[in-house]
Amino acid sequence: MSKARKLQTEVVERPDDFTIPAPNPNEISTIIQPFEYWNEASNNERNVLVLLNQSIEGINLQRLWDNTELHICADGGANRLYDYFANEYTREDYIPQFIVGDFDSIRKEVRLYYAKRGAKVIPQLTQYSTDFTKAMNTIQAYYFSPQSRQDLQVIEDTNNGIAELLESHNVSNQINHRNIRVYILSGIGGRFDQTIHSISQLYILNQSVPYLQLFFITTSDIIFLIQKGKSLIKYPSKEIIHINTNVPSCGLLPLGNTEVIISSLGLKYDVTDWPSSMLGNVSSSNGISGTDGVILDVSDAIVMNIETCHSS
Amino acid sequence: MSKARKLQTEVVERPDDFTIPAPNPNEISTIIQPFEYWNEASNNERNVLVLLNQSIEGINLQRLWDNTELHICADGGANRLYDYFANEYTREDYIPQFIVGDFDSIRKEVRLYYAKRGAKVIPQLTQYSTDFTKAMNTIQAYYFSPQSRQDLQVIEDTNNGIAELLESHNVSNQINHRNIRVYILSGIGGRFDQTIHSISQLYILNQSVPYLQLFFITTSDIIFLIQKGKSLIKYPSKEIIHINTNVPSCGLLPLGNTEVIISSLGLKYDVTDWPSSMLGNVSSSNGISGTDGVILDVSDAIVMNIETCHSS
Repeated sequence: MSKARKLQTEVVERPDDFTIPAPNPNEISTIIQPFEYWNEASNNERNVLVLLNQSIEGINLQRLWDNTELHICADGGANRLYDYFANEYTREDYIPQFIVGDFDSIRKEVRLYYAKRGAKVIPQLTQYSTDFTKAMNTIQAYYFSPQSRQDLQVIEDTNNGIAELLESHNVSNQINHRNIRVYILSGIGGRFDQTIHSISQLYILNQSVPYLQLFFITTSDIIFLIQKGKSLIKYPSKEIIHINTNVPSCGLLPLGNTEVIISSLGLKYDVTDWPSSMLGNVSSSNGISGTDGVILDVSDAIVMNIETCHSS
Repeated sequence: MSKARKLQTEVVERPDDFTIPAPNPNEISTIIQPFEYWNEASNNERNVLVLLNQSIEGINLQRLWDNTELHICADGGANRLYDYFANEYTREDYIPQFIVGDFDSIRKEVRLYYAKRGAKVIPQLTQYSTDFTKAMNTIQAYYFSPQSRQDLQVIEDTNNGIAELLESHNVSNQINHRNIRVYILSGIGGRFDQTIHSISQLYILNQSVPYLQLFFITTSDIIFLIQKGKSLIKYPSKEIIHINTNVPSCGLLPLGNTEVIISSLGLKYDVTDWPSSMLGNVSSSNGISGTDGVILDVSDAIVMNIETCHSS
């Protein structure tokens, strides 16, 4: 009881629509634009779509596809893509550039179908990394340099060739990469250990490959990491988030094994210096009030989810 | 890479069927029987079913209902129960004993329907606790003593009466409660902030009300907490977990605020003194090898999920 009362005093309720003052650009360490996959005015450059072997029912794949330039299927993710299109004519318009993984799930006819139509199929049999990681390595090799992109097309090592390509180019030691947005279908919402594996990868890749901005897309929300420091979450308008409500639900979820101190501007219930942990306070069923953005200042990386609903 | 190789050396792969030696009862601090809801031979005493306001599609509600003795709907959970039965005759056989919550979601005709048929409808308007917490309070009042159970029937305070009933009976200061199994539909798998709120409650209630054993049931798995110390997870046979596979998938998910050291006996990939954290190792896509049980020894509370599939 006392905790709830104390909490109440540290929270400010905002009106449903609340325009945040323009932040000082020097104070913002990260800008996140989660909804570019749905923004018709957006450039698809350096936007990536990854399909995992999980249900993509209820997702508008076409628009996501159009707003991303690189399309990768991780193993059985290719089956999901194939099965998504009942119509053979439509299916032919959605050919991924790469299919990677240990190939214990992809069906033979699916593999042949896409290979015949130009997809680069790269078996990576090693069991020391997951199909998810193999897809992330492919993204890094694709964007690192013209040479590494070319090398990817002629890779011969079917065990761990993509990871070794990254090592030979010394990718991890080179910083100043421009951000790459990676939209992942779906990784979250199925079996719970797979969901938490995805979240764990969100934290781990944020440390090892911080220029990859990962977004998990489910039928009900989008899930991503807020890095330590001050971030601006930007969008053209709230309509792009949710067509049926003016205050899309959201949460800030301290899943990284540490307490996180949060200050926010633009949430329905804004907090200041608010300690959040799994055994203490978790901001769930909060909402987005900011008309075109939200500012978050966090003492450590924290997961954010925002409820989405698009017109079909 | 080095981490994966190191990890490999600390893991033992078991055969698909592996019978663990009978543990010394003095060494086991907690016995968990997650699948009693599906065990036809089980006694439904002190088994509880809670319906939250989330989809229950694809769940075999009838068998769960029969294997539990107390049925509680949290607010809009009553709508879900009502809508689950298209057939009016069947609907009448599934009347919950209690409907609690702030009632911002329950439909009027649903409330009237169940009230007329004997459900005790208790509005609890306070916004200082969630509908989930109100349901947990109801369970405690129901089982604490004959007097507290009777008091629940005549409660008048529509704001926070159930919590105050618990306080007046001094429930939290009395230990040696026998365990109560609480099956919750579904709390996990919908909007991600609601999922993580449920997991946070799993940890928090484990500290404040350790005799409540919570189990979240989804269409794909069952999710519960392993308390610090040595636990035996028991079941009559693996068939009760999953009808289509001999090695149901499982995970051990360190979602509290600490690293957890794990030793296991009866998993497909058994570990010894294995450190697990969200930024390090997470045991996902593991499996159940133990033919009638698994032993887990953990340095701190950790979430477990087990993939389930039942005959309908």
